[in-house]
Amino acid sequence: VLIGLGLFDEKDISLKGLEEAKNSSKVYAEVYTSIWKGSFKKLEKMVGKKISLLERKDLEEEFEKILEEAKEEKIAVFVPGDPLIATTHSSLILEARKRGVGTKIIHSSSIISAIAECGLHIYKFGKILTIPLPEKTKILPQSVYDGIKENLGRGLHTLCLLDVDVESKKFLEVNEALGILMEMENIFNKKVVSLSTKILVLSEIGSDKPKIVYDKIENLLKQEFNLPAVIIIPGELHFTEKEFLNSI
Amino acid sequence: VLIGLGLFDEKDISLKGLEEAKNSSKVYAEVYTSIWKGSFKKLEKMVGKKISLLERKDLEEEFEKILEEAKEEKIAVFVPGDPLIATTHSSLILEARKRGVGTKIIHSSSIISAIAECGLHIYKFGKILTIPLPEKTKILPQSVYDGIKENLGRGLHTLCLLDVDVESKKFLEVNEALGILMEMENIFNKKVVSLSTKILVLSEIGSDKPKIVYDKIENLLKQEFNLPAVIIIPGELHFTEKEFLNSI
Repeated sequence: VLIGLGLFDEKDISLKGLEEAKNSSKVYAEVYTSIWKGSFKKLEKMVGKKISLLERKDLEEEFEKILEEAKEEKIAVFVPGDPLIATTHSSLILEARKRGVGTKIIHSSSIISAIAECGLHIYKFGKILTIPLPEKTKILPQSVYDGIKENLGRGLHTLCLLDVDVESKKFLEVNEALGILMEMENIFNKKVVSLSTKILVLSEIGSDKPKIVYDKIENLLKQEFNLPAVIIIPGELHFTEKEFLNSI
Repeated sequence: VLIGLGLFDEKDISLKGLEEAKNSSKVYAEVYTSIWKGSFKKLEKMVGKKISLLERKDLEEEFEKILEEAKEEKIAVFVPGDPLIATTHSSLILEARKRGVGTKIIHSSSIISAIAECGLHIYKFGKILTIPLPEKTKILPQSVYDGIKENLGRGLHTLCLLDVDVESKKFLEVNEALGILMEMENIFNKKVVSLSTKILVLSEIGSDKPKIVYDKIENLLKQEFNLPAVIIIPGELHFTEKEFLNSI
Protein backbone atom coordinates (compact mmCIF):
# COMPACT_ATOMS: atom_id res chain seq x y z
CA VAL A 1 0.00 0.00 0.00
CA LEU A 2 1.49 3.29 -1.11
CA ILE A 3 0.12 6.01 1.17
CA GLY A 4 0.32 9.70 0.30
CA LEU A 5 1.40 11.95 3.16
CA GLY A 6 0.01 15.01 1.40
CA LEU A 7 1.36 18.50 0.95
CA PHE A 8 3.12 19.67 4.07
CA ASP A 9 3.17 17.88 7.42
CA GLU A 10 1.94 14.79 9.30
CA LYS A 11 -1.61 16.15 9.53
CA ASP A 12 -2.06 16.17 5.75
CA ILE A 13 -2.55 12.40 5.63
CA SER A 14 -6.12 11.24 5.07
CA LEU A 15 -8.07 9.19 7.60
CA LYS A 16 -8.01 6.37 5.04
CA GLY A 17 -4.22 6.59 4.80
CA LEU A 18 -3.77 6.48 8.54
CA GLU A 19 -6.14 3.52 8.83
CA GLU A 20 -4.27 1.57 6.14
CA ALA A 21 -0.95 2.19 7.91
CA LYS A 22 -2.42 0.97 11.20
CA ASN A 23 -3.62 -2.21 9.50
CA SER A 24 -0.24 -2.97 7.92
CA SER A 25 2.37 -5.27 9.44
CA LYS A 26 5.23 -2.93 8.62
CA VAL A 27 5.48 0.72 7.71
CA TYR A 28 8.22 2.35 5.62
CA ALA A 29 8.66 5.92 4.47
CA GLU A 30 10.39 7.40 1.43
CA VAL A 31 10.85 11.13 1.86
CA TYR A 32 13.51 12.06 -0.65
CA THR A 33 11.61 12.59 -3.88
CA SER A 34 10.09 15.78 -2.49
CA ILE A 35 10.18 17.93 0.61
CA TRP A 36 8.04 16.88 3.56
CA LYS A 37 7.91 19.08 6.65
CA GLY A 38 6.19 16.69 9.05
CA SER A 39 7.55 15.03 12.17
CA PHE A 40 8.25 11.30 12.04
CA LYS A 41 7.96 11.03 15.78
CA LYS A 42 4.43 12.39 15.63
CA LEU A 43 3.58 10.21 12.64
CA GLU A 44 4.85 7.11 14.46
CA LYS A 45 2.72 8.02 17.45
CA MET A 46 -0.34 8.46 15.24
CA VAL A 47 0.19 5.12 13.49
CA GLY A 48 1.24 3.35 16.70
CA LYS A 49 4.16 1.69 14.92
CA LYS A 50 7.82 2.23 14.17
CA ILE A 51 8.35 3.72 10.72
CA SER A 52 11.50 2.61 8.88
CA LEU A 53 13.04 5.30 6.73
CA LEU A 54 14.22 3.97 3.39
CA GLU A 55 17.89 4.53 2.57
CA ARG A 56 18.29 7.24 0.00
CA LYS A 57 21.50 5.68 -1.29
CA ASP A 58 19.91 2.68 -2.88
CA LEU A 59 16.17 3.05 -3.20
CA GLU A 60 15.97 0.26 -5.80
CA GLU A 61 17.49 -2.22 -3.38
CA GLU A 62 15.17 -1.04 -0.62
CA PHE A 63 12.16 -1.49 -2.89
CA GLU A 64 13.37 -5.02 -3.68
CA LYS A 65 13.32 -5.87 0.03
CA ILE A 66 9.84 -4.38 0.46
CA LEU A 67 8.46 -6.36 -2.49
CA GLU A 68 9.78 -9.59 -0.99
CA GLU A 69 8.12 -8.83 2.34
CA ALA A 70 4.90 -7.80 0.61
CA LYS A 71 4.50 -11.33 -0.75
CA GLU A 72 3.78 -12.46 2.79
CA GLU A 73 2.20 -9.51 4.57
CA LYS A 74 0.68 -6.09 4.17
CA ILE A 75 3.41 -3.47 3.87
CA ALA A 76 2.71 0.27 3.90
CA VAL A 77 5.04 2.80 2.30
CA PHE A 78 4.52 6.47 3.11
CA VAL A 79 5.49 8.95 0.43
CA PRO A 80 5.11 12.76 0.37
CA GLY A 81 2.25 14.30 -1.62
CA ASP A 82 0.09 12.11 -3.86
CA PRO A 83 1.97 8.80 -4.26
CA LEU A 84 2.37 8.43 -8.02
CA ILE A 85 3.50 11.93 -8.92
CA ALA A 86 7.08 10.70 -8.56
CA THR A 87 7.67 8.21 -11.38
CA THR A 88 9.91 6.21 -9.01
CA HIS A 89 6.76 5.13 -7.24
CA SER A 90 4.98 4.00 -10.41
CA SER A 91 7.88 1.67 -11.07
CA LEU A 92 7.51 0.22 -7.55
CA ILE A 93 3.86 -0.55 -8.39
CA LEU A 94 4.84 -2.02 -11.74
CA GLU A 95 7.51 -4.24 -10.14
CA ALA A 96 4.96 -5.42 -7.57
CA ARG A 97 2.54 -6.40 -10.34
CA LYS A 98 5.24 -8.33 -12.16
CA ARG A 99 5.71 -10.40 -9.00
CA GLY A 100 2.02 -10.94 -8.45
CA VAL A 101 1.98 -8.72 -5.36
CA GLY A 102 -1.32 -6.84 -4.94
CA THR A 103 -1.07 -3.07 -4.71
CA LYS A 104 -3.21 -0.21 -3.44
CA ILE A 105 -2.81 3.55 -3.68
CA ILE A 106 -4.07 5.94 -1.01
CA HIS A 107 -4.18 9.37 -2.58
CA SER A 108 -3.50 12.63 -0.83
CA SER A 109 -3.12 16.35 -1.49
CA SER A 110 -0.54 17.35 -4.06
CA ILE A 111 0.95 20.56 -5.38
CA ILE A 112 -0.37 19.53 -8.81
CA SER A 113 -3.91 20.50 -7.79
CA ALA A 114 -3.10 22.75 -4.80
CA ILE A 115 -1.65 25.42 -7.13
CA ALA A 116 -5.26 26.44 -7.77
CA GLU A 117 -4.88 28.36 -4.48
CA CYS A 118 -3.24 31.18 -6.48
CA GLY A 119 -6.49 31.76 -8.34
CA LEU A 120 -5.41 30.56 -11.78
CA HIS A 121 -7.85 28.07 -13.29
CA ILE A 122 -6.51 24.53 -13.27
CA TYR A 123 -8.08 24.00 -16.71
CA LYS A 124 -5.77 26.59 -18.22
CA PHE A 125 -2.45 24.95 -17.32
CA GLY A 126 -0.29 23.33 -19.98
CA LYS A 127 2.54 20.84 -19.62
CA ILE A 128 4.27 20.76 -16.21
CA LEU A 129 8.01 21.40 -16.31
CA THR A 130 10.89 20.99 -13.87
CA ILE A 131 13.64 23.59 -13.56
CA PRO A 132 16.81 21.49 -13.23
CA LEU A 133 19.56 21.71 -10.63
CA PRO A 134 22.56 23.31 -12.33
CA GLU A 135 24.81 20.57 -10.89
CA LYS A 136 22.86 17.95 -12.77
CA THR A 137 23.03 19.48 -16.24
CA LYS A 138 26.13 20.82 -17.93
CA ILE A 139 24.02 22.68 -20.45
CA LEU A 140 20.61 24.11 -19.71
CA PRO A 141 17.86 21.99 -21.28
CA GLN A 142 16.15 23.87 -24.10
CA SER A 143 13.16 21.52 -23.73
CA VAL A 144 12.18 23.26 -20.50
CA TYR A 145 12.42 26.71 -22.07
CA ASP A 146 10.57 25.60 -25.21
CA GLY A 147 7.92 23.90 -23.07
CA ILE A 148 7.09 27.21 -21.39
CA LYS A 149 7.08 28.92 -24.78
CA GLU A 150 4.68 26.34 -26.24
CA ASN A 151 2.33 26.70 -23.27
CA LEU A 152 2.37 30.48 -23.62
CA GLY A 153 1.73 30.13 -27.35
CA ARG A 154 -1.52 28.36 -26.47
CA GLY A 155 -2.33 30.95 -23.79
CA LEU A 156 -1.69 28.37 -21.07
CA HIS A 157 -0.11 28.76 -17.63
CA THR A 158 3.04 26.78 -16.77
CA LEU A 159 3.69 25.10 -13.45
CA CYS A 160 7.46 24.87 -12.92
CA LEU A 161 8.57 22.43 -10.24
CA LEU A 162 11.96 22.84 -8.62
CA ASP A 163 14.40 19.99 -9.07
CA VAL A 164 15.49 17.65 -6.29
CA ASP A 165 18.51 15.37 -6.30
CA VAL A 166 17.65 12.38 -4.17
CA GLU A 167 21.19 11.10 -3.63
CA SER A 168 22.97 14.36 -2.87
CA LYS A 169 19.97 15.75 -0.95
CA LYS A 170 20.13 18.94 -3.04
CA PHE A 171 17.03 21.07 -3.54
CA LEU A 172 16.80 23.90 -6.04
CA GLU A 173 15.98 27.20 -4.31
CA VAL A 174 13.48 29.70 -5.74
CA ASN A 175 16.15 32.35 -6.34
CA GLU A 176 18.36 29.90 -8.20
CA ALA A 177 15.41 28.77 -10.30
CA LEU A 178 14.55 32.36 -11.23
CA GLY A 179 18.20 32.90 -12.15
CA ILE A 180 18.16 29.80 -14.36
CA LEU A 181 14.99 31.03 -16.05
CA MET A 182 16.68 34.33 -16.93
CA GLU A 183 19.84 32.50 -18.03
CA MET A 184 17.74 30.34 -20.36
CA GLU A 185 16.19 33.49 -21.78
CA ASN A 186 19.66 34.89 -22.48
CA ILE A 187 20.85 31.72 -24.18
CA PHE A 188 17.78 30.65 -26.16
CA ASN A 189 16.50 34.17 -26.64
CA LYS A 190 12.91 33.69 -27.79
CA LYS A 191 11.28 36.33 -25.57
CA VAL A 192 9.59 33.94 -23.15
CA VAL A 193 10.33 35.98 -20.00
CA SER A 194 12.09 39.20 -19.05
CA LEU A 195 12.99 40.75 -15.70
CA SER A 196 9.73 42.69 -15.83
CA THR A 197 7.50 39.64 -16.51
CA LYS A 198 5.04 39.14 -13.67
CA ILE A 199 5.04 35.56 -12.47
CA LEU A 200 4.00 33.68 -9.33
CA VAL A 201 5.92 32.00 -6.55
CA LEU A 202 3.96 29.65 -4.26
CA SER A 203 5.81 28.62 -1.13
CA GLU A 204 4.83 26.28 1.71
CA ILE A 205 1.37 25.57 0.32
CA GLY A 206 -0.58 23.41 2.77
CA SER A 207 1.13 25.02 5.76
CA ASP A 208 -0.45 27.49 8.17
CA LYS A 209 1.30 30.31 6.35
CA PRO A 210 1.33 29.65 2.63
CA LYS A 211 3.14 32.43 0.77
CA ILE A 212 1.86 33.38 -2.67
CA VAL A 213 3.54 36.29 -4.45
CA TYR A 214 2.65 37.69 -7.88
CA ASP A 215 5.33 40.13 -8.99
CA LYS A 216 7.97 40.97 -11.58
CA ILE A 217 10.90 38.55 -11.72
CA GLU A 218 13.32 41.36 -10.79
CA ASN A 219 11.39 41.91 -7.54
CA LEU A 220 10.94 38.22 -6.80
CA LEU A 221 14.72 37.77 -7.08
CA LYS A 222 15.14 40.05 -4.05
CA GLN A 223 12.80 38.02 -1.84
CA GLU A 224 13.34 34.95 0.34
CA PHE A 225 11.12 31.92 -0.16
CA ASN A 226 11.09 28.76 1.92
CA LEU A 227 10.89 25.35 0.30
CA PRO A 228 8.82 23.51 -0.81
CA ALA A 229 7.97 26.01 -3.51
CA VAL A 230 6.95 26.19 -7.14
CA ILE A 231 6.99 28.87 -9.81
CA ILE A 232 4.07 29.59 -12.11
CA ILE A 233 4.37 31.48 -15.37
CA PRO A 234 0.88 32.70 -16.25
CA GLY A 235 -0.43 32.61 -19.81
CA GLU A 236 -3.45 34.62 -20.92
CA LEU A 237 -5.49 35.72 -17.93
CA HIS A 238 -9.26 35.44 -17.67
CA PHE A 239 -10.72 38.51 -15.94
CA THR A 240 -11.57 36.46 -12.84
CA GLU A 241 -7.97 35.26 -12.71
CA LYS A 242 -6.73 38.86 -13.01
CA GLU A 243 -9.04 39.94 -10.24
CA PHE A 244 -7.81 37.10 -8.01
CA LEU A 245 -4.11 37.80 -8.70
CA ASN A 246 -4.64 41.46 -7.88
CA SER A 247 -6.24 40.51 -4.56
CA ILE A 248 -3.11 38.62 -3.43
CA VAL B 1 -12.09 27.74 5.82
CA LEU B 2 -12.63 25.77 2.63
CA ILE B 3 -11.95 22.10 3.43
CA GLY B 4 -11.37 19.51 0.73
CA LEU B 5 -13.18 16.22 1.25
CA GLY B 6 -10.88 14.44 -1.16
CA LEU B 7 -11.55 11.93 -3.89
CA PHE B 8 -14.21 9.50 -2.85
CA ASP B 9 -15.76 9.20 0.62
CA GLU B 10 -15.71 10.63 4.15
CA LYS B 11 -12.40 8.95 4.97
CA ASP B 12 -10.52 10.90 2.29
CA ILE B 13 -10.48 14.07 4.39
CA SER B 14 -7.12 14.93 5.97
CA LEU B 15 -6.56 15.04 9.73
CA LYS B 16 -5.96 18.78 9.29
CA GLY B 17 -9.30 19.19 7.52
CA LEU B 18 -11.18 17.32 10.21
CA GLU B 19 -9.48 19.36 12.94
CA GLU B 20 -10.38 22.65 11.23
CA ALA B 21 -14.02 21.58 10.95
CA LYS B 22 -14.09 20.65 14.64
CA ASN B 23 -12.71 24.09 15.53
CA SER B 24 -15.29 25.97 13.46
CA SER B 25 -18.53 27.40 14.84
CA LYS B 26 -20.54 26.21 11.87
CA VAL B 27 -20.01 23.66 9.12
CA TYR B 28 -21.50 23.75 5.62
CA ALA B 29 -21.06 21.43 2.67
CA GLU B 30 -21.29 22.02 -1.06
CA VAL B 31 -21.43 18.73 -2.91
CA TYR B 32 -22.78 19.61 -6.32
CA THR B 33 -19.73 20.67 -8.29
CA SER B 34 -18.50 17.08 -8.38
CA ILE B 35 -19.54 13.63 -7.24
CA TRP B 36 -18.84 12.67 -3.64
CA LYS B 37 -19.65 9.16 -2.43
CA GLY B 38 -19.29 9.67 1.31
CA SER B 39 -21.93 9.55 4.01
CA PHE B 40 -22.98 12.83 5.62
CA LYS B 41 -24.17 11.03 8.70
CA LYS B 42 -20.72 9.55 9.22
CA LEU B 43 -19.06 12.87 8.47
CA GLU B 44 -21.28 14.64 11.01
CA LYS B 45 -20.37 12.03 13.59
CA MET B 46 -16.67 12.50 12.86
CA VAL B 47 -16.88 16.27 13.14
CA GLY B 48 -19.27 16.14 16.09
CA LYS B 49 -21.47 18.83 14.53
CA LYS B 50 -24.44 19.22 12.28
CA ILE B 51 -23.44 19.90 8.68
CA SER B 52 -25.73 22.17 6.68
CA LEU B 53 -26.01 21.25 3.03
CA LEU B 54 -25.97 24.28 0.78
CA GLU B 55 -28.94 24.70 -1.52
CA ARG B 56 -28.03 23.84 -5.07
CA LYS B 57 -30.64 26.26 -6.43
CA ASP B 58 -28.91 29.42 -5.40
CA LEU B 59 -25.31 28.82 -4.43
CA GLU B 60 -24.44 32.52 -4.81
CA GLU B 61 -27.05 33.48 -2.24
CA GLU B 62 -25.87 30.74 0.09
CA PHE B 63 -22.29 31.98 -0.23
CA GLU B 64 -23.52 35.49 0.60
CA LYS B 65 -24.97 34.22 3.87
CA ILE B 66 -21.79 32.34 4.73
CA LEU B 67 -19.63 35.41 4.10
CA GLU B 68 -21.81 37.46 6.43
CA GLU B 69 -21.46 34.85 9.18
CA ALA B 70 -17.73 34.53 8.55
CA LYS B 71 -17.26 38.16 9.58
CA GLU B 72 -18.10 37.14 13.14
CA GLU B 73 -17.01 33.53 13.51
CA LYS B 74 -15.04 30.70 11.95
CA ILE B 75 -17.12 28.98 9.27
CA ALA B 76 -16.04 25.75 7.57
CA VAL B 77 -17.25 24.77 4.11
CA PHE B 78 -16.68 21.20 2.96
CA VAL B 79 -16.23 20.68 -0.77
CA PRO B 80 -15.41 17.49 -2.70
CA GLY B 81 -11.84 16.91 -3.92
CA ASP B 82 -9.27 19.70 -3.60
CA PRO B 83 -11.24 22.90 -2.85
CA LEU B 84 -10.18 25.27 -5.63
CA ILE B 85 -10.46 22.96 -8.62
CA ALA B 86 -14.02 24.22 -9.09
CA THR B 87 -13.78 27.88 -10.09
CA THR B 88 -16.97 28.56 -8.09
CA HIS B 89 -14.89 28.13 -4.96
CA SER B 90 -12.18 30.56 -6.08
CA SER B 91 -14.85 33.20 -6.43
CA LEU B 92 -16.04 32.50 -2.87
CA ILE B 93 -12.46 33.16 -1.69
CA LEU B 94 -12.25 36.31 -3.79
CA GLU B 95 -15.56 37.60 -2.43
CA ALA B 96 -14.36 36.93 1.11
CA ARG B 97 -11.20 38.95 0.49
CA LYS B 98 -13.20 41.84 -0.89
CA ARG B 99 -15.09 41.95 2.40
CA GLY B 100 -11.96 41.65 4.54
CA VAL B 101 -12.86 38.15 5.69
CA GLY B 102 -9.79 35.96 6.29
CA THR B 103 -9.65 32.70 4.33
CA LYS B 104 -7.85 29.39 4.59
CA ILE B 105 -7.68 26.42 2.23
CA ILE B 106 -7.28 22.84 3.46
CA HIS B 107 -6.18 20.80 0.48
CA SER B 108 -7.08 17.21 -0.21
CA SER B 109 -6.74 14.51 -2.84
CA SER B 110 -8.00 15.35 -6.31
CA ILE B 111 -8.48 13.53 -9.60
CA ILE B 112 -6.07 16.09 -11.12
CA SER B 113 -3.11 14.30 -9.51
CA ALA B 114 -4.75 10.91 -8.78
CA ILE B 115 -4.86 10.10 -12.51
CA ALA B 116 -1.19 9.17 -12.15
CA GLU B 117 -2.58 5.85 -10.85
CA CYS B 118 -2.97 4.76 -14.50
CA GLY B 119 0.80 4.87 -14.93
CA LEU B 120 0.98 7.84 -17.31
CA HIS B 121 3.50 10.45 -16.16
CA ILE B 122 1.85 13.57 -14.78
CA TYR B 123 4.56 15.67 -16.48
CA LYS B 124 3.32 14.58 -19.87
CA PHE B 125 -0.24 15.85 -19.60
CA GLY B 126 -1.39 18.88 -21.57
CA LYS B 127 -4.40 21.11 -21.07
CA ILE B 128 -7.30 19.56 -19.13
CA LEU B 129 -10.64 19.53 -20.99
CA THR B 130 -14.25 18.90 -20.03
CA ILE B 131 -16.59 16.89 -22.23
CA PRO B 132 -19.86 18.84 -22.09
CA LEU B 133 -23.34 17.59 -21.30
CA PRO B 134 -25.28 17.53 -24.59
CA GLU B 135 -28.19 19.31 -22.88
CA LYS B 136 -25.99 22.28 -22.15
CA THR B 137 -24.63 22.87 -25.63
CA LYS B 138 -26.67 23.02 -28.82
CA ILE B 139 -23.55 22.56 -30.90
CA LEU B 140 -20.52 20.57 -29.82
CA PRO B 141 -17.66 22.85 -28.81
CA GLN B 142 -14.80 22.58 -31.28
CA SER B 143 -12.47 24.01 -28.60
CA VAL B 144 -12.61 20.69 -26.72
CA TYR B 145 -11.82 18.68 -29.84
CA ASP B 146 -9.05 21.07 -30.89
CA GLY B 147 -7.64 21.03 -27.36
CA ILE B 148 -7.15 17.27 -27.56
CA LYS B 149 -5.64 17.65 -31.02
CA GLU B 150 -3.17 20.31 -29.81
CA ASN B 151 -2.13 18.14 -26.86
CA LEU B 152 -1.60 15.18 -29.17
CA GLY B 153 0.40 17.38 -31.53
CA ARG B 154 2.82 18.01 -28.68
CA GLY B 155 2.86 14.32 -27.73
CA LEU B 156 0.91 15.10 -24.56
CA HIS B 157 -1.83 13.13 -22.78
CA THR B 158 -5.27 14.68 -22.29
CA LEU B 159 -7.35 14.40 -19.15
CA CYS B 160 -11.04 14.75 -20.08
CA LEU B 161 -13.35 15.48 -17.19
CA LEU B 162 -17.05 14.67 -17.48
CA ASP B 163 -19.44 17.59 -17.23
CA VAL B 164 -21.78 18.18 -14.31
CA ASP B 165 -24.79 20.45 -14.26
CA VAL B 166 -25.19 21.70 -10.72
CA GLU B 167 -28.78 22.90 -11.00
CA SER B 168 -30.31 19.98 -12.87
CA LYS B 169 -28.15 17.44 -11.00
CA LYS B 170 -27.12 15.92 -14.34
CA PHE B 171 -23.85 14.02 -14.66
CA LEU B 172 -22.35 12.98 -17.97
CA GLU B 173 -21.87 9.19 -18.12
CA VAL B 174 -18.73 7.57 -19.56
CA ASN B 175 -20.63 5.99 -22.47
CA GLU B 176 -22.23 9.30 -23.40
CA ALA B 177 -18.84 11.02 -23.25
CA LEU B 178 -17.29 8.41 -25.53
CA GLY B 179 -20.20 8.89 -27.92
CA ILE B 180 -19.68 12.66 -27.91
CA LEU B 181 -15.98 12.16 -28.61
CA MET B 182 -16.81 10.07 -31.69
CA GLU B 183 -19.47 12.55 -32.76
CA MET B 184 -16.93 15.36 -32.55
CA GLU B 185 -14.59 13.31 -34.70
CA ASN B 186 -17.33 12.92 -37.30
CA ILE B 187 -18.14 16.62 -37.35
CA PHE B 188 -14.70 18.22 -37.09
CA ASN B 189 -12.93 15.38 -38.83
CA LYS B 190 -9.24 15.95 -38.06
CA LYS B 191 -8.29 12.37 -37.17
CA VAL B 192 -7.98 12.87 -33.43
CA VAL B 193 -9.63 9.57 -32.44
CA SER B 194 -11.22 6.58 -34.13
CA LEU B 195 -13.15 3.59 -32.77
CA SER B 196 -9.89 1.66 -32.66
CA THR B 197 -7.97 4.31 -30.69
CA LYS B 198 -6.86 2.91 -27.34
CA ILE B 199 -7.73 5.27 -24.52
CA LEU B 200 -8.22 5.04 -20.75
CA VAL B 201 -11.23 5.19 -18.50
CA LEU B 202 -10.60 5.69 -14.77
CA SER B 203 -13.62 5.08 -12.59
CA GLU B 204 -14.10 5.41 -8.83
CA ILE B 205 -10.46 6.35 -8.16
CA GLY B 206 -9.88 6.60 -4.42
CA SER B 207 -12.42 3.87 -3.67
CA ASP B 208 -11.61 0.33 -2.56
CA LYS B 209 -12.17 -0.86 -6.11
CA PRO B 210 -10.85 1.69 -8.57
CA LYS B 211 -11.45 0.58 -12.15
CA ILE B 212 -8.86 1.47 -14.76
CA VAL B 213 -9.36 0.18 -18.30
CA TYR B 214 -7.06 0.74 -21.27
CA ASP B 215 -8.80 -0.37 -24.44
CA LYS B 216 -10.12 0.61 -27.85
CA ILE B 217 -13.04 3.05 -27.80
CA GLU B 218 -15.29 0.48 -29.53
CA ASN B 219 -14.70 -1.94 -26.64
CA LEU B 220 -15.02 0.71 -23.94
CA LEU B 221 -18.41 1.67 -25.38
CA LYS B 222 -19.68 -1.80 -24.46
CA GLN B 223 -18.64 -1.55 -20.83
CA GLU B 224 -20.32 -0.09 -17.76
CA PHE B 225 -18.47 2.46 -15.65
CA ASN B 226 -19.61 3.96 -12.39
CA LEU B 227 -19.20 7.67 -11.71
CA PRO B 228 -17.10 9.55 -10.77
CA ALA B 229 -14.99 8.80 -13.81
CA VAL B 230 -12.63 10.48 -16.24
CA ILE B 231 -11.33 9.67 -19.70
CA ILE B 232 -7.67 9.96 -20.69
CA ILE B 233 -6.47 10.17 -24.27
CA PRO B 234 -2.80 9.20 -24.24
CA GLY B 235 -0.25 11.02 -26.36
CA GLU B 236 3.18 9.58 -27.11
CA LEU B 237 4.03 6.81 -24.66
CA HIS B 238 7.35 6.48 -22.86
CA PHE B 239 8.38 2.81 -22.65
CA THR B 240 7.75 2.76 -18.89
CA GLU B 241 4.24 4.11 -19.54
CA LYS B 242 3.64 1.42 -22.16
CA GLU B 243 4.83 -1.25 -19.78
CA PHE B 244 2.50 0.09 -17.07
CA LEU B 245 -0.53 0.30 -19.37
CA ASN B 246 0.06 -3.26 -20.52
CA SER B 247 0.13 -4.42 -16.89
CA ILE B 248 -3.39 -3.08 -16.23
